[in-house]
Amino acid sequence: MPVATIVWEGGRPGHVRMIDQTLLPTQYVVLDVRTVEHMFDGIRRLAVRGAPAIGVAAGFGLLLGVQHLDERDPDDVLGRVRETAAYLAKARPTAVNLFWALERMLARATRDHAARRAIVDGLFEEARAIFDEDCAICRKIGEVGAALVRDGATLLTHCNAGGLATADFGTALAPIYAATAQGKRVAVFADETRPLLQGSRLTAWELMQSGIDVTLITDNMAARVMYEGKIDAVFVGADRIARNGDTANKIGTYGVAVLAREHGIPFYVCAPLSTFDEKIENGSQIPIEERDPEEVTHGLGRRTAPEGVKVYNPAFDVTPARLISGIVTEVGLIERPTRERVEAALRRGGRLP
Amino acid sequence: MPVATIVWEGGRPGHVRMIDQTLLPTQYVVLDVRTVEHMFDGIRRLAVRGAPAIGVAAGFGLLLGVQHLDERDPDDVLGRVRETAAYLAKARPTAVNLFWALERMLARATRDHAARRAIVDGLFEEARAIFDEDCAICRKIGEVGAALVRDGATLLTHCNAGGLATADFGTALAPIYAATAQGKRVAVFADETRPLLQGSRLTAWELMQSGIDVTLITDNMAARVMYEGKIDAVFVGADRIARNGDTANKIGTYGVAVLAREHGIPFYVCAPLSTFDEKIENGSQIPIEERDPEEVTHGLGRRTAPEGVKVYNPAFDVTPARLISGIVTEVGLIERPTRERVEAALRRGGRLP
Repeated sequence: MPVATIVWEGGRPGHVRMIDQTLLPTQYVVLDVRTVEHMFDGIRRLAVRGAPAIGVAAGFGLLLGVQHLDERDPDDVLGRVRETAAYLAKARPTAVNLFWALERMLARATRDHAARRAIVDGLFEEARAIFDEDCAICRKIGEVGAALVRDGATLLTHCNAGGLATADFGTALAPIYAATAQGKRVAVFADETRPLLQGSRLTAWELMQSGIDVTLITDNMAARVMYEGKIDAVFVGADRIARNGDTANKIGTYGVAVLAREHGIPFYVCAPLSTFDEKIENGSQIPIEERDPEEVTHGLGRRTAPEGVKVYNPAFDVTPARLISGIVTEVGLIERPTRERVEAALRRGGRLP
Repeated sequence: MPVATIVWEGGRPGHVRMIDQTLLPTQYVVLDVRTVEHMFDGIRRLAVRGAPAIGVAAGFGLLLGVQHLDERDPDDVLGRVRETAAYLAKARPTAVNLFWALERMLARATRDHAARRAIVDGLFEEARAIFDEDCAICRKIGEVGAALVRDGATLLTHCNAGGLATADFGTALAPIYAATAQGKRVAVFADETRPLLQGSRLTAWELMQSGIDVTLITDNMAARVMYEGKIDAVFVGADRIARNGDTANKIGTYGVAVLAREHGIPFYVCAPLSTFDEKIENGSQIPIEERDPEEVTHGLGRRTAPEGVKVYNPAFDVTPARLISGIVTEVGLIERPTRERVEAALRRGGRLP
């Protein structure tokens, strides 16, 4: 039901069709991406964004670079695969999912080369698997989360952890899409999410595309909306989750969690197991990136603050586990997360021995 | 120490100098307002804003219209005063302080006419009194509030209840100016205050003009800043206060109050007694104005949300008295406000028998 953020079109050879997210919400443009250089550019300038979607874009991007190679010289093919992966890895220097997907593709090529199997055929399988696994995880998160959404519910979300950020359903929005597909009536309040406005630009847009009843508010209206009894539950995504359940996510998430607790509203984090960092004991160890002051002073392309004003612009905050009603993952709900419960889920998913 | 928002320049005749607030923070333009038509225009297009400042502007505006009249025909003078007041009253149809100031000027003229005193001379005294009383109230709020600010404190404020909104010190910012004048080192975090950005456009600007250390944040960063232990107290203004202390103020204030309580940070409301509405028992009776969706979707002059998106845009919220550490007024601090304590303060100020 959500928009098709990125898909592979045709077989071999084929090409990528993906939404240019930089133009949303004023223009809806679907790019036909036919070369690895074009994909490099799309990743670099955030035409495709969201960790899972970037992983998929990396896999497909590698295919674009090698799909026309002649398989009769496997050494040459492997060399070209390595070159192309190294090239794509430079598109965004800090995107973990970009490297993860490229390494996975490279490992597959290396294995197939050693086993004298057709390398490019194998890469097609692998890229498709990355895509399919992301879809399956989103669907599973949607299924687990939808059980928490009653018919007629109104939910609040912050930032965009939706279909635009993944190959499919999204994470925070997955329970909304899944509950709607089950025939439940669901309405959503979307925080606009300053400074970069992912809520108004992306979340409001993709929910409207799916015909879901969405109301846009500024971030500082969430308290009032909760006070008026309008919100039944909060669903947000996560950027990184510590072993005890403390969750780093887009700036503003922590404040929403405090407000939800004050109003007795359940607060759910939706995230695949890959978001957990088992080496991090608790939230105090998660580094908080500080970003360019211009995001605040020139929010929408125009100066709105005095020249030379001091700005504090943390990109993320940390919501302590005690404020989280549950973490919705592809292996089920981690209720009132604690270290023990997080570890149990990671073991269930094969992420811990 | 704060900026001179609006002053009367010269004696009789004289003229008004006032900051054109619509151009801040990118341009600092002081208008020389020499005619009542020019003042009408300034009030209408929000060149001057903030309830107390509008009252002062109304008084001065009336002077501009009548200062050249020949006092030898008192009936004619009174007629012209009435006409000018009726004209100015149309500049902003819902600004209570505009009507209050014009009625006060008119009552003075009527009294002086009956007593055969010089009418225009009396109006000069009255307009000066409105200005002086506003200054005195701001100074007193500053003095009472400064006692709550320790040397080295960092304070958070929301919206603009500063010098730009009054003839002098402001209300929420008065304790900051007063504490600074006492030699205390005070730093301020200013919420940008979506949708209309009074925090980034006005508060950050006027504090910088006074050399006060101010850091701008988006509204959704307040929780993180508090979590990091950066904030010692919150000072905000008020639009209307119920008899039990429940306080309506700019949207987002209630959320800040909840966050302050969560982090054990004192939360103070600064307001003159004229802000109390003794006919309103509690906050649930305060009507909340809903404003144009375009303020949210076109925040800074550019569309940033999808065409046709539903928007909820309440201009104010209500902070329940239980979250308020104290209300700073010109007759002293109302600590942990209750109906009894509010009534006692109103009696002290002569607002209740």
